[in-house]
Amino acid sequence: MSGPIAILGGTGPQGRGLALRWARAGQTVIIGSRDGSRAQNVAQEINQKVGSGAQITGAENSAACAHANVCVLTVPFEAQAELLKQLKPALKPGSILIDATVPLAASVGGRPTRVLGVWQGAAAQQTAELVGKGVTVVGAFHNVSAELLKGDAEVDCDVIVCTDDDNARKVASDLAEKIPGIRAVDGGKLENARIVEQITGLLITLNIRYKVHSAGIRMTGLPIRPGA
Amino acid sequence: MSGPIAILGGTGPQGRGLALRWARAGQTVIIGSRDGSRAQNVAQEINQKVGSGAQITGAENSAACAHANVCVLTVPFEAQAELLKQLKPALKPGSILIDATVPLAASVGGRPTRVLGVWQGAAAQQTAELVGKGVTVVGAFHNVSAELLKGDAEVDCDVIVCTDDDNARKVASDLAEKIPGIRAVDGGKLENARIVEQITGLLITLNIRYKVHSAGIRMTGLPIRPGA
Repeated sequence: MSGPIAILGGTGPQGRGLALRWARAGQTVIIGSRDGSRAQNVAQEINQKVGSGAQITGAENSAACAHANVCVLTVPFEAQAELLKQLKPALKPGSILIDATVPLAASVGGRPTRVLGVWQGAAAQQTAELVGKGVTVVGAFHNVSAELLKGDAEVDCDVIVCTDDDNARKVASDLAEKIPGIRAVDGGKLENARIVEQITGLLITLNIRYKVHSAGIRMTGLPIRPGA
Repeated sequence: MSGPIAILGGTGPQGRGLALRWARAGQTVIIGSRDGSRAQNVAQEINQKVGSGAQITGAENSAACAHANVCVLTVPFEAQAELLKQLKPALKPGSILIDATVPLAASVGGRPTRVLGVWQGAAAQQTAELVGKGVTVVGAFHNVSAELLKGDAEVDCDVIVCTDDDNARKVASDLAEKIPGIRAVDGGKLENARIVEQITGLLITLNIRYKVHSAGIRMTGLPIRPGA
């Protein structure tokens, strides 16, 4: 991963957290936002947190997208489809779009512990439909606590990576494992993202019931290195 | 938990595995099956595995059910509704029914990595509708590898317990933690079982992709004792 990563809708807690961790890992990051100057402000905040050497800038979403071969989508579900329609001309053919969107019922005024049914199956499959061929979609980073990402400690969870493309899976998995503590797990096809997305609803239930902001998952019984 | 546990549809891999582990823990277990003599044979097999002191018998499902205040349902989804209609008169008022059913698409000839939509939301909610009031339903034990249960080693996974009743949650959680290695996690309301049920589809994907039979989950970031 030599090129920059664009984090679209990256001024929210999830986007900021990923940006911080990737910038710390030496990755070049472009924060995208509907409002370019807001994106620049957030980039500057993160720059200060990371210190010298951080390569992080901010731009309006389409501009961010046009400068990256790998984009990560971290918008609330209610903003997903509209943003993708707008971004379609800016997404480069051959690029990878990693979708972390969770169709929480909160998007339509429901409870954050509940998840909406998406016609295509997964929110990430809706994304694949909207961006069209030429852009490879990956579902990943749904289950990572934004609260843990914004800190300094290792992040104790797995990132389950769902996609139909082996190269895109490798790119997303490598990005996941740039964050200390995180282990990437091969979750199979993009369609499986529907299950991974729903797990976030369960994690929100656990956060509420156990009064924390740190609930996550680890898969066990796999013949790959255990998580941290 | 002084009384016996009935494991309905208990001659399959999941039922046998739970029976073995609970019998080892000193619990009295009644294996239930459509065919009472088959249940008795399986009970005898498990008896021999556990050795002296094991309290495990077999009976036809309704008879098993009539002798227990806690029943565990481990039938394939395609057998769930029919069995429950048949058992309704035998289920005691005030009893607890722990449902481990997963609505795998394999039930209707589809892939085991895919899950069916259930009208009520979760298979466990369908159960609650079918047994009617007076019987408390819990969704649990969906994500425990039958392959690990049948062995001797600690089982490296959490059991997420979903129910609307605090006492029933305690009963199911205590049963889960009688199995070495397993940790019970409070998964909130019964309706959340729909997410936990679906996780099993993902675990089957992981088993296939990683060529194992042992995939499981642990929740992280919770202020309770970590798993084994």
